[in-house]
Amino acid sequence: MRDNRISNAVIRRLPRYRRILEELVAKDIERISSNELSALTGYTASQIRQDLNNFGGFGQQGYGYNVQSLFTQIGLILGLDRDYRMVIVGCGNLGQAIANYATYYKRGFRITAMFDVNPKLIGIKINDIEVQDYEFLEKYLAENEIEIGIICTTKNSAQDVANKFTEGNVKGIWNFAPADIEVGEGIVLENVHLSDSLNTLAYFISHQERP
Amino acid sequence: MRDNRISNAVIRRLPRYRRILEELVAKDIERISSNELSALTGYTASQIRQDLNNFGGFGQQGYGYNVQSLFTQIGLILGLDRDYRMVIVGCGNLGQAIANYATYYKRGFRITAMFDVNPKLIGIKINDIEVQDYEFLEKYLAENEIEIGIICTTKNSAQDVANKFTEGNVKGIWNFAPADIEVGEGIVLENVHLSDSLNTLAYFISHQERP
Repeated sequence: MRDNRISNAVIRRLPRYRRILEELVAKDIERISSNELSALTGYTASQIRQDLNNFGGFGQQGYGYNVQSLFTQIGLILGLDRDYRMVIVGCGNLGQAIANYATYYKRGFRITAMFDVNPKLIGIKINDIEVQDYEFLEKYLAENEIEIGIICTTKNSAQDVANKFTEGNVKGIWNFAPADIEVGEGIVLENVHLSDSLNTLAYFISHQERP
Repeated sequence: MRDNRISNAVIRRLPRYRRILEELVAKDIERISSNELSALTGYTASQIRQDLNNFGGFGQQGYGYNVQSLFTQIGLILGLDRDYRMVIVGCGNLGQAIANYATYYKRGFRITAMFDVNPKLIGIKINDIEVQDYEFLEKYLAENEIEIGIICTTKNSAQDVANKFTEGNVKGIWNFAPADIEVGEGIVLENVHLSDSLNTLAYFISHQERP
């Protein structure tokens, strides 16, 4: 079950901490203070200390945080100490972009199959994965344990795909279609609403310009 | 200048309200209560009333909110009563996906030019826009007023593109590259960190599974 003691807001900050720590690891930086982390993350030092205290407080006064250890522990908390098998439905530009992204940037997240309804896409290979006819999705999910279903279809097809993913017992759905879909109980839904992001950008641009 | 009375958290909820109201408008639904909006948005009714009060309180007790009016007013607040000219750098699958998305789903956000360094992409047309050589970006930005620069390059090229956008006086940058980039003062930066979204999904999946 979900750990209710930790708020979603904290959870949503963890990937950012981890991303920044990853860069510090790559630069061979061994330790970091909450003040330095503040400068890098944009969160306040007290917010950072409070966030990290949620997980047992990895910092030491006068020393700060051990970068490698904090990076590893946040990865463990996020559930990144295991592999996730993923299936993409919708293999147009967006689906192919997500496949490339996962393949080149996301170790531990593995695309195992891709599906589309478009005869022009069925049969082509994307990073060695052959695009299959969408009608075989159900069978594939019945025969393979898949953690994450990724929706890269148009708005109108998204709910149908979500239903198939629900019936096929995926654990989570990563939705890129600009649609508010419903998923079965116990299935985690993560929407990437590009529209919300772009509209927020428009807000800040137009409010910067106004005197 | 940015209106500091309204918190960023509220601003980030507005696109979601607007998206849901847009669907209600399409279904010819005329009015809605904060309780009904709560069921559709997942925010509490009191949160919704509080959020919308920030903008002068469009609701009326016993009537609720006029859907069309609320939709229009949120659009005005978000700065959607005008056009935004956008330029994409990086025209691989991701850049093409964003171009299609903007063209088909986002009225008011217009791609005016696309750039890449790859000779295989330079010269091809994407929705009637010909991909230009990246070396012409500087000149293009000097000759055209562009509000939004979109970065769809690899991680390593992102900062260089951001610098060119900064020098070219874009108002905002929409960054899809998995990199923490720096932008000039007064320029709005909106990152789409797919990694953060996927890692959050992994967290909730792994914590659902643990007893």
